[in-house]
Amino acid sequence: MPKRVVIVGAVALGPKVACRLRRLDPDYQITVIDRDSLISYGGCGIPYYVGGDIPDIEGLYSTSSHALRDPEFFRTHKGVDIMPRVEAVRIERKEKKLLVRHLDTGQEESLDYDKLVIATGASPFKPPIPGADLPMVFTVSNLHAARAIKEKISQGQVGKAVVIGAGAIGIEMAEALTDLWGVDTTIVEMADQVLPAALGKNISKVLENHLIENGVKLMLSEKVTRIDGDTDSGVTSVETGSGTLECDLVVMSAGVRPNTGFAQEAGLAVGNSGGLLVDRGMRTSDPHIYAGGDCIEMRNQVNGENMIMPLGSLANRQGRIIANNIHGRASKFRGTVGSFCIKIFDMAAAKAGLTLSQAREIGYDPVHAVVAQSDRAHFYPSSQLMYIHLIADRRTRRILGIEAVGYQGDAVKGRVDSIAPLLQEGIDVDEVCTLETAYAPPFASAMDVINNAGNVLDNILDGRNHPMDSMEFVDAFNHDRIRVIDVREHKEAEPFTAKYGERWMNIPQSELRHRLDEIPKGKPICLVCGTGARSYECQILLNQKGFHNICNVQGGHAMILATHPGFI
Amino acid sequence: MPKRVVIVGAVALGPKVACRLRRLDPDYQITVIDRDSLISYGGCGIPYYVGGDIPDIEGLYSTSSHALRDPEFFRTHKGVDIMPRVEAVRIERKEKKLLVRHLDTGQEESLDYDKLVIATGASPFKPPIPGADLPMVFTVSNLHAARAIKEKISQGQVGKAVVIGAGAIGIEMAEALTDLWGVDTTIVEMADQVLPAALGKNISKVLENHLIENGVKLMLSEKVTRIDGDTDSGVTSVETGSGTLECDLVVMSAGVRPNTGFAQEAGLAVGNSGGLLVDRGMRTSDPHIYAGGDCIEMRNQVNGENMIMPLGSLANRQGRIIANNIHGRASKFRGTVGSFCIKIFDMAAAKAGLTLSQAREIGYDPVHAVVAQSDRAHFYPSSQLMYIHLIADRRTRRILGIEAVGYQGDAVKGRVDSIAPLLQEGIDVDEVCTLETAYAPPFASAMDVINNAGNVLDNILDGRNHPMDSMEFVDAFNHDRIRVIDVREHKEAEPFTAKYGERWMNIPQSELRHRLDEIPKGKPICLVCGTGARSYECQILLNQKGFHNICNVQGGHAMILATHPGFI
Repeated sequence: MPKRVVIVGAVALGPKVACRLRRLDPDYQITVIDRDSLISYGGCGIPYYVGGDIPDIEGLYSTSSHALRDPEFFRTHKGVDIMPRVEAVRIERKEKKLLVRHLDTGQEESLDYDKLVIATGASPFKPPIPGADLPMVFTVSNLHAARAIKEKISQGQVGKAVVIGAGAIGIEMAEALTDLWGVDTTIVEMADQVLPAALGKNISKVLENHLIENGVKLMLSEKVTRIDGDTDSGVTSVETGSGTLECDLVVMSAGVRPNTGFAQEAGLAVGNSGGLLVDRGMRTSDPHIYAGGDCIEMRNQVNGENMIMPLGSLANRQGRIIANNIHGRASKFRGTVGSFCIKIFDMAAAKAGLTLSQAREIGYDPVHAVVAQSDRAHFYPSSQLMYIHLIADRRTRRILGIEAVGYQGDAVKGRVDSIAPLLQEGIDVDEVCTLETAYAPPFASAMDVINNAGNVLDNILDGRNHPMDSMEFVDAFNHDRIRVIDVREHKEAEPFTAKYGERWMNIPQSELRHRLDEIPKGKPICLVCGTGARSYECQILLNQKGFHNICNVQGGHAMILATHPGFI
Repeated sequence: MPKRVVIVGAVALGPKVACRLRRLDPDYQITVIDRDSLISYGGCGIPYYVGGDIPDIEGLYSTSSHALRDPEFFRTHKGVDIMPRVEAVRIERKEKKLLVRHLDTGQEESLDYDKLVIATGASPFKPPIPGADLPMVFTVSNLHAARAIKEKISQGQVGKAVVIGAGAIGIEMAEALTDLWGVDTTIVEMADQVLPAALGKNISKVLENHLIENGVKLMLSEKVTRIDGDTDSGVTSVETGSGTLECDLVVMSAGVRPNTGFAQEAGLAVGNSGGLLVDRGMRTSDPHIYAGGDCIEMRNQVNGENMIMPLGSLANRQGRIIANNIHGRASKFRGTVGSFCIKIFDMAAAKAGLTLSQAREIGYDPVHAVVAQSDRAHFYPSSQLMYIHLIADRRTRRILGIEAVGYQGDAVKGRVDSIAPLLQEGIDVDEVCTLETAYAPPFASAMDVINNAGNVLDNILDGRNHPMDSMEFVDAFNHDRIRVIDVREHKEAEPFTAKYGERWMNIPQSELRHRLDEIPKGKPICLVCGTGARSYECQILLNQKGFHNICNVQGGHAMILATHPGFI
């Protein structure tokens, strides 16, 4: 049995491998090295430290019983030796040696291994923008950066900030700056939406409005071209295509790149995204070298392609698998369906699988449903609307992706988590219609929002439901391409009919079958109700009565309001 | 295509079938009958109406847009005719006729059908106890009963109540009586735990303590033998095996029985639990007659046996399937994994699959893990402990059941829902270890509680983890059969060592490897820490150092406290 194990990296996966191995067998000689002095920390907690939810930075590297996870802790509690401030220089694969350098002394040392584990993680990508190296330009790279950012803010040095990139970390940092510190924060994002890699536009639009409501400024489809300031006093402004943004702090969150330099030099295979390639047993192209976490590519189980998925949750699971396999057990990591969630002020979003555009890109013919429904029995007092976006392939009816957003984050995540594990097996729409989740009025509807998302998609695929997205609707209405029939009760529709006159007609559902002669001819008709259920029923009725060119707004007025809060 | 459809029952499944059919084709002649005048209501909401969460009873039969779901609503909005106060008398299967009786006039009528749907639900079982027919003895059968109970309470007629049966409805009613109205409430349950059909003893014990903490009195392993009172003034007390309980109100919640009288008389096949037998297309033994909801038996997909599962959620899903099939589409209902959840004061519990004793009964050799861990990143401020009980078959490692309890109900339900849909496919322990659920610190741990439940069970199955349940532990400790080593820090252990002396020794984990000579010989040793993680690591260390007859308390001190709040 291989007994000498060297592990490079001591943040998430590295310590997991080490501790599990130690529990499996006391005789392993385990050496863990890390460039940093701070190890085994929850990097994903940094925005919550900056934002004050976590008062002390030690919270990010303490156990749940408040022990600091430093080298001393690993030695006394776990029986594992960790060498901080040591970096990997070169792998000599033939000799199974790792050359390392002690950063404080410059001294080099050669470590023999039977198995080597690469857990070097990823580093924030720093876009090549002039001024990117000025003081007060930060990436959210590690606890030192976190501490520096919080120090600057708490000393009152930051009145205005610019965040470059609207990925998860950028948004979380913007919330932290705005919410606790009242920093005037602008996010500049190249794509035309926030979270472009994770979410489609229906759900991201809801989040964009929520960010704006909470005081974060958004500049989408926009690039930072230059950062101005001086090397003493820091930054003064950033230049974008559409003007200058004054600021005292810049946070760069433009994605990450796997740390694979010395591994690549040793000839280990790397994929298109720059991550190490591993098999299902987490072995690299050298069977004596394992890798996992943010520095590898993993298989996306929905589209079969490789991707980088920098999440502590995956790293921890992979760590256990690597230890099992070093110990001679055949554990497998099959890939990821891209499960993701985020808290943004009072809302939360979650997703798994592909977005609409990702599905189209690889050749699917995706069909999607948008459902707005209360997240628990609608008569239960704490119920709130949840929005679900469900995507299937038209031909096979296979579910390709699910996205959800709402106000009760555990409930939002719960709905996505109930579908995610099924995506890899190829669940179809019917299975979502009948998906069995636990039911009681305080936590779900009898016909739950997740089942209804399936039902709606089923009706769309069957050609029975003719939906229009709220964004498409607002555009068509504003350009006078459609006529609207509001099928809610008079009282609900009145503000709209008063404002828009004959362009926004009101025929309540209960009166529709007797007022068919009032249905206007000519332009396409779009039916609107509160959440989309009544307008769908009315569309069916009109179709059955011989009317065509009729659609209904998916998610109804609730979705219109969530994506276009200014629309009445 | 069959055009005349008669539906018996208009609460959950019946209206769903009718409305879906109407949307599928306007030409169906659909007749829905119901014995009651109030229809299409959320019966599972009754406890929340009694408890005041839902102020008006109309909330239970209104749509989310506040329209009352009465026959008029179904006619004008849904194009469906519902005949209230009409009961089914006899099916003449050969002639495809249903004889019905108008309850207000006594008049009988014969309805022709091409397809008949039986959606008669279930009725509360009234145990044959002397006095069961006295006034102020209620079952939670329908909205009339709900209204009557609330009226009595709100008029101040109820100071003390007895609830017979600690199933979901009994517990929810006890909470409603205690919480809003301050009624002195005792639940009397024959089994030795609450929710005996749904939960194993580890999780039910946590709930029992929570009920007691909130002022509900519990009498377990106890029977009501007589109800005393008189036919004018109502009840005065109930008699149990261990004495008399004074009370002004009795709520019977001793389970339900499927309403299948006229269907059985017509010769339709019925299973062992008294429910109609249906195939996967929801057809009874007569292919022209469908049935669904609380009056049928469904297949438990974990043990393959039939069961009654009276839940509005299943009824609604089955209703859509029945309509699809009448319309000529082959939709299937494959069964249930018994998903269940309940809110109890500030806690919630959820489960899917089998309990430990159910698994044993049918011949499995079940192994279980109990995990106590925070429901989000432990450093995130709102994190709270969640307790998960995971069961697998020893030989095949197949997951047989999962139970969870905690303070954030959506999170509890979410964890169970992420496993439940996989139970039918036969998920094994390894798949729980690597289960991919969405991760962000506000909603999950990097190694989430659900994955850790898998990891712990995996370690138990591998013979590496030797656990003891908290209940077993307290019993063994109280009878002096074990010695305890508390591996927490001195400060945490001090109250215990002070109280128990040498029976409760303290060696913190960090000191253990240097204090091996202090490990007492003789009695078995049980290691205790905060939640079970450290004591497991210490058990491993002691095993590696040659000590045997050592176990650790699953869920640690947290679980001891949750199951035995009186134990220091």
